[in-house]
Amino acid sequence: MTPIDPADAVPDGLLEAFRAYERALMTDDIDAMDSLFAAGPETLRGDRGGLLVGHEAIAAFRRGRGGAPARTLGDLHVQVVDADTALIMVVTLAASGGRGLQTQLWRRIDGTWQVTAAQVGPPPQTFDPTVWRVVGDPLVAGAESGPLAGEGIAVKDVFAVAGHQVGAGVPAYLAGSPLAETSAAAVGLLLAAGASVRGIARTDQFAYSIAGTNEHYGAPVNPVVTGAVPGGSTSGSATAVSLGAAKIGLGTDTAGSIRVPASYQGLWGLRTTHGSVPTDGLLALAPDFDTVGLLTRDSELLRRAAAVLVPSATAGCGGLVMDPAVIARASADVAAAVAAAVDGLGTRNTVDLGDLEKAYEAFRVHQAFQAWQVHGEWITSHPGALKGAAAGRFEIAAAVTVEQDAAARQVLAGARSRWDEALGDGVLVLPSAASAPPLLTDPPEAVDRVRAATLTLTCVAGITGRPAVSVPGLTVEGGPVGLCLVGPRGSDLALLDRAAALAATRP
Amino acid sequence: MTPIDPADAVPDGLLEAFRAYERALMTDDIDAMDSLFAAGPETLRGDRGGLLVGHEAIAAFRRGRGGAPARTLGDLHVQVVDADTALIMVVTLAASGGRGLQTQLWRRIDGTWQVTAAQVGPPPQTFDPTVWRVVGDPLVAGAESGPLAGEGIAVKDVFAVAGHQVGAGVPAYLAGSPLAETSAAAVGLLLAAGASVRGIARTDQFAYSIAGTNEHYGAPVNPVVTGAVPGGSTSGSATAVSLGAAKIGLGTDTAGSIRVPASYQGLWGLRTTHGSVPTDGLLALAPDFDTVGLLTRDSELLRRAAAVLVPSATAGCGGLVMDPAVIARASADVAAAVAAAVDGLGTRNTVDLGDLEKAYEAFRVHQAFQAWQVHGEWITSHPGALKGAAAGRFEIAAAVTVEQDAAARQVLAGARSRWDEALGDGVLVLPSAASAPPLLTDPPEAVDRVRAATLTLTCVAGITGRPAVSVPGLTVEGGPVGLCLVGPRGSDLALLDRAAALAATRP
Repeated sequence: MTPIDPADAVPDGLLEAFRAYERALMTDDIDAMDSLFAAGPETLRGDRGGLLVGHEAIAAFRRGRGGAPARTLGDLHVQVVDADTALIMVVTLAASGGRGLQTQLWRRIDGTWQVTAAQVGPPPQTFDPTVWRVVGDPLVAGAESGPLAGEGIAVKDVFAVAGHQVGAGVPAYLAGSPLAETSAAAVGLLLAAGASVRGIARTDQFAYSIAGTNEHYGAPVNPVVTGAVPGGSTSGSATAVSLGAAKIGLGTDTAGSIRVPASYQGLWGLRTTHGSVPTDGLLALAPDFDTVGLLTRDSELLRRAAAVLVPSATAGCGGLVMDPAVIARASADVAAAVAAAVDGLGTRNTVDLGDLEKAYEAFRVHQAFQAWQVHGEWITSHPGALKGAAAGRFEIAAAVTVEQDAAARQVLAGARSRWDEALGDGVLVLPSAASAPPLLTDPPEAVDRVRAATLTLTCVAGITGRPAVSVPGLTVEGGPVGLCLVGPRGSDLALLDRAAALAATRP
Repeated sequence: MTPIDPADAVPDGLLEAFRAYERALMTDDIDAMDSLFAAGPETLRGDRGGLLVGHEAIAAFRRGRGGAPARTLGDLHVQVVDADTALIMVVTLAASGGRGLQTQLWRRIDGTWQVTAAQVGPPPQTFDPTVWRVVGDPLVAGAESGPLAGEGIAVKDVFAVAGHQVGAGVPAYLAGSPLAETSAAAVGLLLAAGASVRGIARTDQFAYSIAGTNEHYGAPVNPVVTGAVPGGSTSGSATAVSLGAAKIGLGTDTAGSIRVPASYQGLWGLRTTHGSVPTDGLLALAPDFDTVGLLTRDSELLRRAAAVLVPSATAGCGGLVMDPAVIARASADVAAAVAAAVDGLGTRNTVDLGDLEKAYEAFRVHQAFQAWQVHGEWITSHPGALKGAAAGRFEIAAAVTVEQDAAARQVLAGARSRWDEALGDGVLVLPSAASAPPLLTDPPEAVDRVRAATLTLTCVAGITGRPAVSVPGLTVEGGPVGLCLVGPRGSDLALLDRAAALAATRP
């Protein structure tokens, strides 16, 4: 007597409910889908984006999805458990090609068939254009030997790669972009050290965002938090590294574009000392703040790659310092997690960095002014080329006057000298981001609030030109958050050693 | 009262069995895994490779897999149905990066917990190197307008693509291959017609196979038959087209390398008239038989792309003809399916093509002789560069003497004139392949037998230089099989029209 007896009668009403769900899915009838999934916090639905737990999270996902891809059904298998419970596994045939697979556990609850658990497997994807613009095995081979031999790089699409265009996350810019004759200096250094270029990874439009939700190409998945933004603007590189599709993410960090995706995805991230890596072949955003950065899954490789990019950044760094008021700017849970972590790090001094708001505002103004200097002419001559938040940001940038910029520069110079004095050779500890990653379905106001809070934290390294390392390992309810260490200029390698030592001793 | 009550006690022994399975998976303890899956034909296991039905198929898959990727477990959810039934959904954390998801239905059968259904979702893959060597969005943009505007091409890795190397499925060949200055003529024609190159797709080593199981890079998935070979040597292009990752597969057909993957994956395929498409920029295999070919999911696009590649192939074609002895060379189920389909096609004449064995043997010898002329010098100077069956095939090719080749040519000339006379302007109907696609786990002898039988069928078009269309739609127990129409030389476009008309009227 086997419990999977094909002769078991399929319970009445089950297949009708199954078909009703499929119809609702194909017509994006969200109410019908919601009603065919069991209410309550225990209902499960997962796909390659991750697992959603609870009816509410599943419903929110459906509202944000904008419909499922068209499909028909192939082989259908029903395993009947009892008169009120059955598992249905069905092959799905995508209209766009390929076969997927779907498993649903159906239960009759108060007389109505409902799904309590579902796993949805879409057809295999051979290329994810939200992560990569171009990718190969490899795309560009590196030197045969060297300290990075065998490692693959996901190059943010603002660095020149010989033989390829620079797209900068903007289709119209890509269309007019020539094939690069030589690779950017940073790419060249990594290739010479034996790494190969795995691919050119997506970025936010002109790297002017920390969300990673490029409106032209879609957001790369956040492989750590289901439904969350990946973090930007080094978004494609970060997701590629998280998924193991590349070992090293090469990116830039102007206002947090390495530290934020590192924080949101639980990666190691390095923003190098401003000016320490040659920027030949790198498309600028705001040159006074632009830095080259790296993302990896572990500290050892980050140290090895950093030694290739900034071999001369061998200054030392002093003791840990913190500013409780800075940490307290983060969301309550992040502040608590970071404060607890700092407590665990032993001796450290407190410093007073004073008013971050004013300095951040000046940072924002000068970044915008420079961004418009760099990209304004192109944007003006390509109306409609930018979409969404980036378009709005450049509109604001266009309006910054020379006088406003001069005033901002004065504030920045003051903040820099004040902070340099306060920090000395100390290593400042603060959160890499002000919160766990926001969800793609969060309301825009909430995302904006989080953004401003995060940038207020990240601007300390931006304004001082200091290197910063994001150390993974902390988790709050909404996902991971990085612990950021900001060291003296030129201390990149010592700072990485310090960060690795801290991570190793953390309980 | 909800049936998913988190307070429901997890039945005794369930989590122990679950953990035992995970241990068995990580140590590739196949016996233990087999014993933890329910016996019988109703047990289910699916992943992105497709759905396996029955304990036996699942066990065979495990034996052929060579172990599962290392992983640890994340969030675990148990939905208890009754004391003997529970669903477990668990997030998996791949050691190489990324999160997957797994659903298992566990049932206590004769006192032992066993899985009756499982869906395994590995972490998202952003790039499939079994399908592509290089891929982009797009890799090379085509003309802004034209009859193929908006269509993406998967270019078999034997055609030059400007700015890229030709790899031909052989890593050592790729390593020494220069960047092409201009694209191959066929690629250029498609680009000029508005198509873009989506990517450069994997092929068998030097295109000398019909299996599609490149030993260096692994076999692309067959998206239609779980665990089956994709068909080669235009393997990557075929899988890319099946999955919708490209609309047009550009390949070559020397001995069946378009028709076989078309047959194995249920695609439309065209082998063009020998000599009708310029072969500049195409790496040869056996020039007397090499032709350019196309794969698509529908006949309309195939016709549109063919009109770009072979605009002058406008000869007409006559009535349908068949040779029952040729059809009978296929496996019994394929022969029966094709015979039934031919019966449904109405009026047609029978012809006698005589002994195919002798002609195929001559085809094999001359193909090998030419293949060695083309590649022998490179292979000799790169010992160890080839792997598996292709290495063996070139070893045999190296041994073909000039005398043997001369004798083969004589047989070929005879067969060609005899067949041309028998066929006239008729359209020969036969199976595209002698069987459904073999499984990756089939024993080598079985695969060889199938290969020889298929090549005996495909050599009719090869020897006569006639165009051939593979029409999808037939299915036997092991999967799809194509109906092949071979027309007069130069009739490519008329032949496609005929094929589309036949497909449209088929019951």
